[in-house]
Amino acid sequence: MKTRDERTIYLEDKPREEALLDCLSFIRKRPKPYERLKTAEAIGRVTAKPVYAGVSNPHYHASAMDGIAVEAGKTKNAHESRPMTLKEGTDFVYVDTGHAIPSPFDAVIMIEHVNERAQDTLDIIEPAVPWQHIRPIGEDITYGEMILPQGHQIRPVDAGALLGAQVLEVDVIKKPEVAIYPSGNELIQPDQRAEPGKLIEFNGTIFAGLVASWGGVPELHEIVKDDRAMIRQALMAGTEKADLVLLNAGSSAGSRDYTKDVIEELGEVWTHGIATRPGKPVIIGCVNHTIVIGVPGYPVSAHFVMEWFVEPILYEWQGIQVPEKPEMPVIAGRRMTSNMGSEDFVRVHIGKVNGQYIANPLSRSASVTMSLVKADGIVTIPPGHLGVEQGDEITARLLKPKSQLDQTILFSGSHDLSIDVLSSVMKQHDGQSSVTPSHTGSLAGIMAIRRGDAHVAGIHLLDPASGTYNDPDIRKWLKGMTIVKLPFLKRKQGLIVPSGNPEQVKGIRDIREKNLHYVNRQKGAGTRVLFDHLLKQEDIKQDEIEGYQREMFTHLSVAAEVMVDPKACGMGIYSAAQAVGADFVPVDDESYDVIMTEDFFNSDRGQKLFHALRSEAFKEQVEALGGYTVDSDVEPVTIQI
Amino acid sequence: MKTRDERTIYLEDKPREEALLDCLSFIRKRPKPYERLKTAEAIGRVTAKPVYAGVSNPHYHASAMDGIAVEAGKTKNAHESRPMTLKEGTDFVYVDTGHAIPSPFDAVIMIEHVNERAQDTLDIIEPAVPWQHIRPIGEDITYGEMILPQGHQIRPVDAGALLGAQVLEVDVIKKPEVAIYPSGNELIQPDQRAEPGKLIEFNGTIFAGLVASWGGVPELHEIVKDDRAMIRQALMAGTEKADLVLLNAGSSAGSRDYTKDVIEELGEVWTHGIATRPGKPVIIGCVNHTIVIGVPGYPVSAHFVMEWFVEPILYEWQGIQVPEKPEMPVIAGRRMTSNMGSEDFVRVHIGKVNGQYIANPLSRSASVTMSLVKADGIVTIPPGHLGVEQGDEITARLLKPKSQLDQTILFSGSHDLSIDVLSSVMKQHDGQSSVTPSHTGSLAGIMAIRRGDAHVAGIHLLDPASGTYNDPDIRKWLKGMTIVKLPFLKRKQGLIVPSGNPEQVKGIRDIREKNLHYVNRQKGAGTRVLFDHLLKQEDIKQDEIEGYQREMFTHLSVAAEVMVDPKACGMGIYSAAQAVGADFVPVDDESYDVIMTEDFFNSDRGQKLFHALRSEAFKEQVEALGGYTVDSDVEPVTIQI
Repeated sequence: MKTRDERTIYLEDKPREEALLDCLSFIRKRPKPYERLKTAEAIGRVTAKPVYAGVSNPHYHASAMDGIAVEAGKTKNAHESRPMTLKEGTDFVYVDTGHAIPSPFDAVIMIEHVNERAQDTLDIIEPAVPWQHIRPIGEDITYGEMILPQGHQIRPVDAGALLGAQVLEVDVIKKPEVAIYPSGNELIQPDQRAEPGKLIEFNGTIFAGLVASWGGVPELHEIVKDDRAMIRQALMAGTEKADLVLLNAGSSAGSRDYTKDVIEELGEVWTHGIATRPGKPVIIGCVNHTIVIGVPGYPVSAHFVMEWFVEPILYEWQGIQVPEKPEMPVIAGRRMTSNMGSEDFVRVHIGKVNGQYIANPLSRSASVTMSLVKADGIVTIPPGHLGVEQGDEITARLLKPKSQLDQTILFSGSHDLSIDVLSSVMKQHDGQSSVTPSHTGSLAGIMAIRRGDAHVAGIHLLDPASGTYNDPDIRKWLKGMTIVKLPFLKRKQGLIVPSGNPEQVKGIRDIREKNLHYVNRQKGAGTRVLFDHLLKQEDIKQDEIEGYQREMFTHLSVAAEVMVDPKACGMGIYSAAQAVGADFVPVDDESYDVIMTEDFFNSDRGQKLFHALRSEAFKEQVEALGGYTVDSDVEPVTIQI
Repeated sequence: MKTRDERTIYLEDKPREEALLDCLSFIRKRPKPYERLKTAEAIGRVTAKPVYAGVSNPHYHASAMDGIAVEAGKTKNAHESRPMTLKEGTDFVYVDTGHAIPSPFDAVIMIEHVNERAQDTLDIIEPAVPWQHIRPIGEDITYGEMILPQGHQIRPVDAGALLGAQVLEVDVIKKPEVAIYPSGNELIQPDQRAEPGKLIEFNGTIFAGLVASWGGVPELHEIVKDDRAMIRQALMAGTEKADLVLLNAGSSAGSRDYTKDVIEELGEVWTHGIATRPGKPVIIGCVNHTIVIGVPGYPVSAHFVMEWFVEPILYEWQGIQVPEKPEMPVIAGRRMTSNMGSEDFVRVHIGKVNGQYIANPLSRSASVTMSLVKADGIVTIPPGHLGVEQGDEITARLLKPKSQLDQTILFSGSHDLSIDVLSSVMKQHDGQSSVTPSHTGSLAGIMAIRRGDAHVAGIHLLDPASGTYNDPDIRKWLKGMTIVKLPFLKRKQGLIVPSGNPEQVKGIRDIREKNLHYVNRQKGAGTRVLFDHLLKQEDIKQDEIEGYQREMFTHLSVAAEVMVDPKACGMGIYSAAQAVGADFVPVDDESYDVIMTEDFFNSDRGQKLFHALRSEAFKEQVEALGGYTVDSDVEPVTIQI
């Protein structure tokens, strides 16, 4: 039992700010290498020195208009009542915009303001003010002026100003090179065949993308085996060439943890473990005068470690600030627990309901990449807090623009593949609308509408007494509300069985009789209500079903689960079976309805959703999934309860 | 006289939103071409279709820990008081993180929680919960699940999720191609010799940089002559290949304006002139089913037109939202006038003084690129307003992060090259501190300190009565305040004369005696005070000096001005003469002091400035300019008035 040891390690965990400071102090002491680039190619780069103008812009007195150049002092007597006649060559010359003003002229009169009399004479009716319509030398940039200070990230307009002053090349900080080594015996490349026990390596691609977006040059290397000598070799080669070395995985407490030992052997370890969740098992040290980071293997931990350490290191290297990350106060829609003593980073969905921004946690697991892909924001629970309660105001860092959150429709209820299609169709339409689903099951969806936590719910609840769908539950739970129901979808429910139906399943009774391994859905899911109803009809008890306790939260997880066990069987929709290549034994055609309050239906977002549901694109894409019938001409049904 | 015509054109100016809508509606009707890319290369690109998972991740039940796999049901009786002994192979197998869980095992016990007894037996003291420490199939991504909707800009983490589901390629919207044609007979490339009458073309580089940063592919072409046939040819070739064509210049009302005629001949003109300042003379039309924009020639107008039209067009093309532009309320530090009937876009400096963000306008001229380079923000004065008064609260779009504005020191007073060096040294130090100078002259600098409009002032004011610098004026104007003076700099003032000193100037008297063309500084400038003092000493009247009325605002503009006229002469500092290669006739060594309130001196920013002034880097860089002596050991002088 290592409980005591673990506690010791836990107490040694550094605050991440402290671990970062070690790195930043180290970099600040290093000279920043720079290189000379052609000005146009230096856009996005950071000046290594102040840049001074090589010439003035304009470098001569330039006409700012099409017109005539005159000596202002000689036009004093011109007046509308007594026009002054000027002769070309002596009294004026014609100039176009950009032309040099020849001596002794010192003003320009716009061509629209002269009356041409003969080939070489004209009249003016107003005196010219000295230097009018002339861009004097250096109006924009003066020779010798500092155009850009040191440490300035060059924007397109800056490059333009430099070229305007004939600065053709500029010294900029070299981009930091980052060597990335994925490591682990279980890893394979994404294009290799995925056998059981082999995990697809994709963190390296994420790291490379992030490094590039932060101004670094990533070098993604081949997968390194969990072998001390190989890791040693990688670290030596990496630190020889790169400015920062990332070694992915190898930082867990597992049997193949060599990273720490090798860093210790070749250099020194600064940090082993930080007080955060996820991201805790990071290792930071220095080898060969180069920072080495042992990044944890789980993708969410890894992503946070990249943001906490690699992003500020790369910006410090370039001498510029990390871009500000927008934040916003939100209300916790659900309780989020946390460990005392460690900072906790929770990925959340954020939606605007009744004028408030509600944040609901996604999966907390560090291995669920999709919790980052789908997140609208990140909520930080500081160390020393046991979490936040429902209704607490907290701060969320936003991963999407706020305007997009305003357009997001919060969906609760039964999982259905058509909801993702709906979201995609809406997003395609205006670039920012979308549906954020929460797979809570039909009954929880109804409750979310009652509480106002969700805008719309998708439900398919069979009323065993009447044999009808949805309306009995809507009337039972949403008393006093006016609900709009969009009965747009029929879908096939049935038994999902492995490809080829090896157990020759024909119906519900076979589950008990053939001792199949059933894969169930969670309580409150419409599919589970249907299954229980069918069991009752067949007079089968729940504990006669092996696997009844094993709950999955989506149709697709049931289908995927079924595919790996020849004796498995689960209930779900046809499209889920089709998606994984499973067989399907139809049991029922059910009504999947979308419900919302009448107020929401009449809102901008409600109408957008309604029109997306009726669109041809939606019908086409959903019916292509299989097992669905979409009625595009559906009329909304208003139910006053 | 074309006054009437102009008024007609003016009335025809469209609101820019309307002109943009024409473009966006046109693009929305076009199909969006797409291409298939390798997933890692698709980062930053926008999905053309929803992307579904090709496999589940994990695609097998995977151990989440290093430990042993067991059948949970068989461990029910394990307890600390009566450990349960398990035998390898039958009761358990060893698994490492990521290993597949072999049938019939359904739980993992961490290796830290088992006591190994013999080579193939061990004890456990706690029952396992079914599925503990196992990542079930599809925990992260389920086969067939929609990973990304259509119209999603792929981030590194998204690419990771796709690869994790073995999606190796993805269909993304093609980047819009933008053909850029600079045009004008007066234009030369930046590397060509700049003769009078030739302007350096640099808008093309700005356009190309902006297009790339907005997700487009720029194609910058050679300069097109102001010739109808050449412009016609460019537009035909451009619209054949590109998705958007930009023709720079040719959109003024000048004699070489062919853009509008050619667009009309080949297609149709949608917009000719918009109700904005700058940016008004834009031309938008359609040729060969491709949008063509005639972008005004002045760099500031051009930049705004790029942001108003090209940015939203390119984002619409890709089907994503234009990124939000941060805004902030600020207080107008000075009056900003505006034309009734047109939107006015004013580049401003923003600084935090006494807890308020004060915005002061930079040059309003559309030809001053540096007004964009130096701007901290843009203030929009809506049409129908005659401007804003000093003290009005207005909204500024920020061009720099707010945290950087908090670190900005507002400088007022006499222009000196050392102030830019100071700013650069500060920025280099922490990446965000800087000094924003306002070249108002010494006396105006003192007044800004009195009003609290600036943090520090740089002054060199000779008191003719006592022959001393600065202190008399500080005591006169800053009664009741406690001022800290940093007397860090001595600089040489003198007469700046053309290279080789063709008029053999030896002193002030020569200006009158040799009828030189004097280039003066503005009222309140310390240099002008010195010059007036010297004139008085020599008993010369101001109207005996030719050019006394011609005012420049910086030493460098005086020097640049002197260089183009063999009879010119101006007063200024040695470094300005040196910067432009002019000759210098020394007149006086003057004290250039930096002053501020005691409170500001003791603030974080004040101390940063003080330390930068004392730094070796500052001394080195300033003395390298020539004519300066920096005393790094200077002690601050506190003056209670």
